[in-house]
Amino acid sequence: MELWTLTAARASALMAEGKLSSEDYTRAFLDRIAERDPLIRAYTWVDRQATLAWARERDREPRRSPLHGIPFGVKDVINTRDAPTQHNSPIYEGHRPGEDANCVAVLRALGAVVLGKTDTLEFAAAGRKPLTRNPRNPAHTPGGSSSGSGAAVADGMAPLALGTQTGGSTIRPASFCGIHGMKPTYGRISFEGVKHYSVHLDTVGLYGRCTDDLWLLAQAYRLTEAERLCAPSVADLRIAVCETPVWSEATDDAQAALHRAAAMLSQAGARVQALVLPESFNTLVAQQNILMHEGGRAAFLPEYLGARSKLHDDFAAKVENQMGFHAAQMREALDGVAARRVEFEQLMGGFDAVLTLSSPGEAPLGLHTQGQATFSRMWTAMGVPCINIPGLTGKTGLPVGVQLIQRRYEDERLLQVAAAVSSVFTPDGLSP
Amino acid sequence: MELWTLTAARASALMAEGKLSSEDYTRAFLDRIAERDPLIRAYTWVDRQATLAWARERDREPRRSPLHGIPFGVKDVINTRDAPTQHNSPIYEGHRPGEDANCVAVLRALGAVVLGKTDTLEFAAAGRKPLTRNPRNPAHTPGGSSSGSGAAVADGMAPLALGTQTGGSTIRPASFCGIHGMKPTYGRISFEGVKHYSVHLDTVGLYGRCTDDLWLLAQAYRLTEAERLCAPSVADLRIAVCETPVWSEATDDAQAALHRAAAMLSQAGARVQALVLPESFNTLVAQQNILMHEGGRAAFLPEYLGARSKLHDDFAAKVENQMGFHAAQMREALDGVAARRVEFEQLMGGFDAVLTLSSPGEAPLGLHTQGQATFSRMWTAMGVPCINIPGLTGKTGLPVGVQLIQRRYEDERLLQVAAAVSSVFTPDGLSP
Repeated sequence: MELWTLTAARASALMAEGKLSSEDYTRAFLDRIAERDPLIRAYTWVDRQATLAWARERDREPRRSPLHGIPFGVKDVINTRDAPTQHNSPIYEGHRPGEDANCVAVLRALGAVVLGKTDTLEFAAAGRKPLTRNPRNPAHTPGGSSSGSGAAVADGMAPLALGTQTGGSTIRPASFCGIHGMKPTYGRISFEGVKHYSVHLDTVGLYGRCTDDLWLLAQAYRLTEAERLCAPSVADLRIAVCETPVWSEATDDAQAALHRAAAMLSQAGARVQALVLPESFNTLVAQQNILMHEGGRAAFLPEYLGARSKLHDDFAAKVENQMGFHAAQMREALDGVAARRVEFEQLMGGFDAVLTLSSPGEAPLGLHTQGQATFSRMWTAMGVPCINIPGLTGKTGLPVGVQLIQRRYEDERLLQVAAAVSSVFTPDGLSP
Repeated sequence: MELWTLTAARASALMAEGKLSSEDYTRAFLDRIAERDPLIRAYTWVDRQATLAWARERDREPRRSPLHGIPFGVKDVINTRDAPTQHNSPIYEGHRPGEDANCVAVLRALGAVVLGKTDTLEFAAAGRKPLTRNPRNPAHTPGGSSSGSGAAVADGMAPLALGTQTGGSTIRPASFCGIHGMKPTYGRISFEGVKHYSVHLDTVGLYGRCTDDLWLLAQAYRLTEAERLCAPSVADLRIAVCETPVWSEATDDAQAALHRAAAMLSQAGARVQALVLPESFNTLVAQQNILMHEGGRAAFLPEYLGARSKLHDDFAAKVENQMGFHAAQMREALDGVAARRVEFEQLMGGFDAVLTLSSPGEAPLGLHTQGQATFSRMWTAMGVPCINIPGLTGKTGLPVGVQLIQRRYEDERLLQVAAAVSSVFTPDGLSP
C-alpha cells in the first residue's frame, strides 16, 4: 500500500502507536508531488529537504497532538514564516512575510508540518489565474480560488490543506475535485496573517479526504470540544433539501445529482424534506457581491497606491468602486444578510442539516475559468458552516459535490452529520 | 513658534508651498520626544536617524498626497516593516514582522513618515499594562489600549497617530488626553497586519489635534471623496443628546459635562434634542463583551499553544472560554447587535449626529488601570463611526470628552459635523 493513500486520521493513529514516522509519511507526499505536480501544478513552492528535516524533528519529539507529524498544504495567500507567500501576484514575487498566519501557527504549534504553498487566483479574489489542473481530468479547472489546495488533497499530494472562502473559494474546489471541504462558521478561525479581501466574509477553509480528517483540523482550531467524531445513525437524521434561489443556474445533471443525493439519504432511512426559502432570500447573492466589493476597496488599497502597474485591473475596479456602491447600499446589504441569518436558522430549526448543491455543475473545461461561486455566496454571506460531501458525479463522470449546512457555531454538529451522510455516498466515507 | 505645535493640515499646506520641509517638521517631533518622552513614555521605539533619513527622502521627491512628508505614530500592535512590533508582549520582544500593516502601507504609499511605535495594553486586549502617562497630568492614565498614540498626539510628540478599537481603545484615550480621535465605520479601513482581537469589532482608530487632521487620514483611507472638509453652520445642525443605558456609570462631573456640551451647542444655534434609546439597547454592552471574548478564543490561540508561559492569564481565560459562552449566546449577541444597528439608525434618521459621553469621567489616577470602555462598547458593537471632541473638563480640570456618532458609512458627514461642533468647544477647533 502506498503511504500517501493513508488519511491523516489513520496516519495519526499509526504514529501514536509508533508504527509510522512523520518522515516516512511526509516523504510519501513529497514523492507523489515530484511525480504528479509537473502535470497538476497544485504547488507554487515545495522545499523537499527542509520539509523532511521538519518531519524528522517532529519524530524526535514527544507527540503534541493528533496532528503531530502530519503534513499539510497551505494556500499561497496565507503567510508562512519559512516559505514565500506570493498571492499569485507579481508584486509579491519571492516575498517572505517572516511570520506564520494564525491558522498556520496553530497547526505548527500542534506539531503539524508545512508541506508547501499551493496555487491560487490572484489574492484569492480576481485577476491572474492559477495554473492548477483538476486531478480528475487535467483538461478541466479544479475550481478556485483555493485551486492548489483542493487539487493537492484530491491527488494525494497532501492529506490536509488550508484554503480560504470569501465567495465560494473552498467549497467549489472541493466540489470540482471530489473531496471533503469545510468552510467553518465565520470568525471561528482567525483570519490574521491571511490576505484579506472582505472582512464581512473572509473565512479560512479546510480540506481533507474524509470527515475524520476535517475533524482533526476542527479540533486543532477548537471548533469542537468532543474527543471523537461520533456519526449519528443516518436513520435518525432529518435533512432539508434546498434548491435555493439560484437553482436555475445549475446544470440539469447537477440538479439531478442533488435529487439523487436526497433519494439515497431517504433510502438509507433519513427523513428528507424540501425546504423552500422565502422570496426575501432572493437578494442574498447580490448583497454578498456588494460586501465583497466594498471589502476589496480597503483590502487592495496599499497595492493600488504602491504598485498599480503590477496589479490586475480587476483590483483597480474594486478600489475605485467602479460599481458605484454607496453607503445606503452597504447598510442594506449588511442588514439584509443579518436578517436572513436569523430567518434561515429559524427555518432550519428542526433539521440536522440543510442539503444543497456545492457548485452549479461539474468543473468547466479549461483553465481560463474556475467556475462560479453561485451556490456558496449566500451561505458565506450568512456566515454559516458548510461542508462539501463528495461521491456524486455529473454527466461526464466528473464530481458534483453537495454541501451540508448548519446554524452558526454548530460546526461540531455539522461534522457529525457530515460523517453520517458521507458514508451514504461513498462506502468507506472516503473521497473517491 | 515651535514647529511641533503646527497641525498636520497646516504643515501640509506649508510643505505644498515649499515653506516647510518634512525633515524640519519631523525633527521638531523627534526633539519633542527626546524632551518629553522620558516622562510620558508614549513610545516603545523611535529611531531618530532612520526617521530623519526617511523625511529627507520625502523632501527630495515630488509630493504624492497631502500627507507627503507628514510623520505619524503607530500603535505597537500594528505591523511595521522597518520597526519592531512587540504588542507589549514578552513573546514578541524585538519581533520584526517584515511587512507593513495595510493601514501603515497606505500612509507610506502616500508619502507619510513613520515616527515611532507607541505603547499599548498587551495585544490591545488585556494583561500587561502600558507605561504611558497622561500628558495633562502624569499621575493619571492616558486611557487605553491606544495609550501611547493618544498621549503622543496630546503632548505634541506626533501630529497624527494610529490606534485600534475593539471596546473603547481609541475613543477613551482621546477623551482622557483631550484630543480628537476617530473610530471609523467598522471594516472601512483594513485590519490586515494588525493584531486581531475580535473580528466582529476590531477597527483601526485615528488621532489628530483637529478635525482637519482627521480629515487628512480619512482621505488617505478613502472614507471621504470630497476634496475639502466643509463644516456646516452650527445653526443648521440637529443634534440628539443620548445619555445611553450606561448613564448611571458616569461620574457627576461627566454627566454635567455632557449637559454643558448640549447647552453650548444649543446656545450656538443648533437644535438639540434628547434621544432616549429603547430598552432593547440595554443588552448591547453585554453582547459586545460576548463578541469580544469569542474573538479572543481564536485570536490568541497560537500564543496560548506556543508560548503559554509568556502569556498573561487573561488570555488563557479567553482561549479556554472560561466565561463559558456557548453557541446560542453567540448567535444571540450577533443578532441582537445587528437588530440594534437598524433600530439605532432609524432613530437617528433626522439628526446630524448623536452626542454622548466618550468615557465615564476624567482619567483615573494611577497607571494600574486605563479606565473603562463602557461608553464605547455599544457603538463599537454596532460598527458606527464615532469622533471624540475635546474641550470640556471634569471636576479636577482634566479632559472629559464627548463623542459624536453617525450612521455606518457616513464617516464623511460625521467629520463635517464634528468640525462644526468642535469649534463650539474650542475657539480654534484645536485640541486644547
